Amino acid sequence: MAAGRGRRAGGGDTRAEILEFARELFAAKGYDGTSVRAVAREAGVDPALVHHYFAGKAALFAEVIGVPRDIEDKIAAAVAGPADGAGERIVRTFLRVWDSPEGRTRFRAMVGAVATHEEAARMLQDFVGRTVLAHLGEVAGGARELALASVGAQLVGMGMLRYVVELPAMVEAEPEEIVALIAPNVQRLLVG
Amino acid sequence: MAAGRGRRAGGGDTRAEILEFARELFAAKGYDGTSVRAVAREAGVDPALVHHYFAGKAALFAEVIGVPRDIEDKIAAAVAGPADGAGERIVRTFLRVWDSPEGRTRFRAMVGAVATHEEAARMLQDFVGRTVLAHLGEVAGGARELALASVGAQLVGMGMLRYVVELPAMVEAEPEEIVALIAPNVQRLLVG
Repeated sequence: MAAGRGRRAGGGDTRAEILEFARELFAAKGYDGTSVRAVAREAGVDPALVHHYFAGKAALFAEVIGVPRDIEDKIAAAVAGPADGAGERIVRTFLRVWDSPEGRTRFRAMVGAVATHEEAARMLQDFVGRTVLAHLGEVAGGARELALASVGAQLVGMGMLRYVVELPAMVEAEPEEIVALIAPNVQRLLVG
Repeated sequence: MAAGRGRRAGGGDTRAEILEFARELFAAKGYDGTSVRAVAREAGVDPALVHHYFAGKAALFAEVIGVPRDIEDKIAAAVAGPADGAGERIVRTFLRVWDSPEGRTRFRAMVGAVATHEEAARMLQDFVGRTVLAHLGEVAGGARELALASVGAQLVGMGMLRYVVELPAMVEAEPEEIVALIAPNVQRLLVG
C-alpha cells in the first residue's frame, strides 16, 4: 500500500487515522473551518466512512479533544423532559459521564490540554459554546448566555475538584449528595 | 561565598532561593510534613528571614503553587463582616485576585500544573482544604464540608471558563454581572 494520502478501504487503524487528520484540521482551521468532507479528503477516505465511525462533526471533534463520544446525545437527553427537574438531570448526567477511572483520566487530560495548549482551549471553547450551551438553551428558554455559561462553570468546577484536584470532600461524596447540593443552583441559573 | 547550603545573609535572590527549597520540601513531604523552620534549614537561612519574605507557611505554600501571595488575607477579609453579603464579597474577591493579564496567566499555569503533576494537585488540595475551606467555614457556621467544596467548585469553574477555556460569554462579562449571577448560589451553599 502506498504511503501517505490516497483513497483506501477501511483497515484496522483507519478510525485512528481519520481521528489524527481531524485533529490536525481542527487545530489548523478551527471548528467552523473544518468539515467531515475535508477530514475525509485529508485522510484519503470516502466521507461515508467518516460517518461510519463518527456520528458527525461534533462527535469527531468531541473525541479529538477528549470528550466522551456520546456526550451530545447525553446532554440532549438530560435537557429533554420537563423543565422542573432539568438541573438534577444535568448534574447527574455530568457525573455519569465522568465518574469512572477512565472518565477521570480523560477529564484530567482534557484540562491539562486546554491549560497548556491554546488550540485545545479554542477547540473546547467552540464545543462548549456550540454544543453544550446550545442544548442548555433549549431547556432554559430565555436565559442569557452568561447564565448558561455559569451552569457550565458549576459543572466544570465540580469536575476540577472531584477529578483533578481531588479534594477529599468532593471525591468522597456520593453522586446523589452532589446532585442534591448543586442541582438547585443549576436550576436557578437555567430557569431563574 | 560557599556554594550549596550554609547559613548566609539575605542576598538579592535569597527570596527566590527560599522559594525553591520550599518547593522541593512541599513536593517531598507535603504540606503537613513541611515547616518554616525546615525550609529555613534547607535554605541555610534563619527562620526569621523566611518570615521576613513570607507571612507564614500558608503564604509560602500558596506562592509555590502559583496562588497570589496575599490570597489568604483576601479570603479572610471577604468572609469577615455580615453573613448576608458573604456570597457577593467572595465572588468579587475571586475576580479581583485573578482578573488581570498576570492573574489569568497564573491561573492557567496553576491549572496546567495540577492537571499534569500529581504533586501539584496534592499541594492545591491541601491548600484549598486547609486555607480556603477553613475560612469559608467561618462564615458558613454549620455548613457541611461538601457545601463549602461546592462553593470552591463554582469559583474554580468560573475561573476555568473565564481564564483557561475563554468562553466568550464568560470572558466578556463585567465582573459585577458575574457577581450578580453566581453570588446567590454561593450564598445558598454557605448559609442554606
